[in-house]
Amino acid sequence: MSTIIVLGAGMVGSAMALDLAKKHTVTVADLSENALAGLKRKNPKIQTVALDARNSGLLKSTLAPFDMVVCAVPGFMGFQTLKTIIESGKNVVDISFFPEDVFELNELAKQHGVTAITDCGVAPGMDNIILGYYNAKMKLTDFECLVGGLPKVKKWPFNYKAPFSPVDVIEEYTRPARYVENSQVITKPAMSDIEHVEMKGVGTLESFNSDGLRSIIHTMPHIPNMKEKTLRYPGHIEKVLALRDSGFLSKQPVKINGVDVIPLEFTSKILFSEWKLGETEEEITVMRVTVQGTDMGVEKKITYHLFDEYDAATQTSSMARTTGYTATAAVNLFLEGLFNEKGVFPPELVGKHEPCFHFFLNYLKERNVIYKKEEVILSKVAAAAKAN
Amino acid sequence: MSTIIVLGAGMVGSAMALDLAKKHTVTVADLSENALAGLKRKNPKIQTVALDARNSGLLKSTLAPFDMVVCAVPGFMGFQTLKTIIESGKNVVDISFFPEDVFELNELAKQHGVTAITDCGVAPGMDNIILGYYNAKMKLTDFECLVGGLPKVKKWPFNYKAPFSPVDVIEEYTRPARYVENSQVITKPAMSDIEHVEMKGVGTLESFNSDGLRSIIHTMPHIPNMKEKTLRYPGHIEKVLALRDSGFLSKQPVKINGVDVIPLEFTSKILFSEWKLGETEEEITVMRVTVQGTDMGVEKKITYHLFDEYDAATQTSSMARTTGYTATAAVNLFLEGLFNEKGVFPPELVGKHEPCFHFFLNYLKERNVIYKKEEVILSKVAAAAKAN
Repeated sequence: MSTIIVLGAGMVGSAMALDLAKKHTVTVADLSENALAGLKRKNPKIQTVALDARNSGLLKSTLAPFDMVVCAVPGFMGFQTLKTIIESGKNVVDISFFPEDVFELNELAKQHGVTAITDCGVAPGMDNIILGYYNAKMKLTDFECLVGGLPKVKKWPFNYKAPFSPVDVIEEYTRPARYVENSQVITKPAMSDIEHVEMKGVGTLESFNSDGLRSIIHTMPHIPNMKEKTLRYPGHIEKVLALRDSGFLSKQPVKINGVDVIPLEFTSKILFSEWKLGETEEEITVMRVTVQGTDMGVEKKITYHLFDEYDAATQTSSMARTTGYTATAAVNLFLEGLFNEKGVFPPELVGKHEPCFHFFLNYLKERNVIYKKEEVILSKVAAAAKAN
Repeated sequence: MSTIIVLGAGMVGSAMALDLAKKHTVTVADLSENALAGLKRKNPKIQTVALDARNSGLLKSTLAPFDMVVCAVPGFMGFQTLKTIIESGKNVVDISFFPEDVFELNELAKQHGVTAITDCGVAPGMDNIILGYYNAKMKLTDFECLVGGLPKVKKWPFNYKAPFSPVDVIEEYTRPARYVENSQVITKPAMSDIEHVEMKGVGTLESFNSDGLRSIIHTMPHIPNMKEKTLRYPGHIEKVLALRDSGFLSKQPVKINGVDVIPLEFTSKILFSEWKLGETEEEITVMRVTVQGTDMGVEKKITYHLFDEYDAATQTSSMARTTGYTATAAVNLFLEGLFNEKGVFPPELVGKHEPCFHFFLNYLKERNVIYKKEEVILSKVAAAAKAN
């Protein structure tokens, strides 16, 4: 049993705190007293502390007594918060998904003897772990991750509710998307290359480019083809593109009754209401992670399928479960001594170790987050085709 | 030759002034010196006067010397302007398409011995004239008008450019639509009952309910089925509905950085840029007016088809030609003594007279605005079907 502090009492932070509290002594810090009170109602043994993590001095003194930190602050303050945690000499699992390059903190982490496991959610997170594992076993040529958090009930016109902040979703829709093709990093506009995909248990979805490869562009430079695409119900993305292409996502202000209004801010506000997932509104997480390459001379394609649903019994969203339990798996894995390297580690650098990989899958399985593996021998398939 | 003043030097006002100046002495009044200067460049014989028609006293003194007035001011100031014109004792043709009930001015017009022909454009306008004519000849059961002003080139996402003010188009998209079914006035939301329609020379368009019946709800109470629908290229209206149904057309303010912004105003501003027809951008007007009923015991369906295009030679938009030349036809028809009743007359009350009806069609034909008539004998068709 360890003492752990979770920074952030949002949907995922709360789910993590409740999960960790089954085994550890848990404190949660957040700016919102309301969020903290809600969490305390669910488990009174959890300690809470009102804290603005942007105050580095206060953050350091708050962290001092704890064995370990879980960082689940909003993305815009993630990098600075993680830096302060590392400077405090605390081991940490981070799911704040900040835009900055995490490897800038690698030397700092080594200096302070800290283990920082970052981007440790569902995607980024579990897709990296799967990739890291098979990259260590096989010579990979292809990696693909298709992932989406979707409402169970589709409401016209957008057929979408955001299982995390709608503002972050819109940000994702405006950021150029990078993927790797023939060992070249290609940058395309967000929401490009729309394709239909059949997903088990859901039906036809639309996939499109999003900027989700993150660390693996740097850690897996030898894999020639890598891409990450976001999944949405059909029709959603066309309407977002219509908004973008008619100026609703522009950052150039327009004058409304003499006042400058930035279209992106206005549109984010309108879509926030439209896309806000209700607290007990059922949602699902669908993901398909595919790696392809040769395993001792045999060409294989290995796919992991995730179809996960809102848990009505505990009122825990699928996004909180699939993201949060990957992070709490990392916490327990570290505390059990399965991984003890010092520095900054995106999940592919943890998942590459066989015991770690299985620890993640088992930990998630115990919490009913189930990844189904499918393996296809491609060279045998090709031979069979020839025989016909 | 008469002296005529045109109020409004917009796209349609200018086209009317140029047309009337072929035969009459024409003055144009507008608030915009720029618009007036542009018109003077096209025909230096046209007199111009800068005028805010909302100033009733000034308007009256400006009108005093003229034989006749053409009113083409923006809709929001149309009713008051028409009232002032009538009070000045001036005969008038009006195409300001204001929302108020024009018959409120009927007594006033009679008192002042004024003839006011109102709503005298393409639709409302020519559809009323066709209806009025056949209503006088036949016992009608059905009237339908499908009409749209469309850009020749379709640009994603909206496939639309507004041949008049985009703000008025959006207003039309928020106003409940009335039609008559089985002699009942039915009110439906704007943009309801979307249907595909094949239009000659254009292909498949989408039609939807709009509030275009206006005066004929009152003047034709004996016709059991009457409807007016707007035409757009496929895909347009779904995107407008998506905006409406996610709150972009709401009149409830939202706070953006502490400032109240009304979504409808913001969206109008964005769509104004997106929908603004370029000055020499080619557009078309498509209309199909159908009347059905019995003509001396024979059941007939009579359809008038209009497919009109931008005139590159004179740089006159199709909407200005089809709307403006209907109004200038009314001016000349009145000046030639074909119609001399006193009061307020929507076009169905003018078109009902055989010489007036033919005057309109011929006047428009001379200006290459051509209505093609198609007549189907329905009772003979039914008899033939029986014989088979």
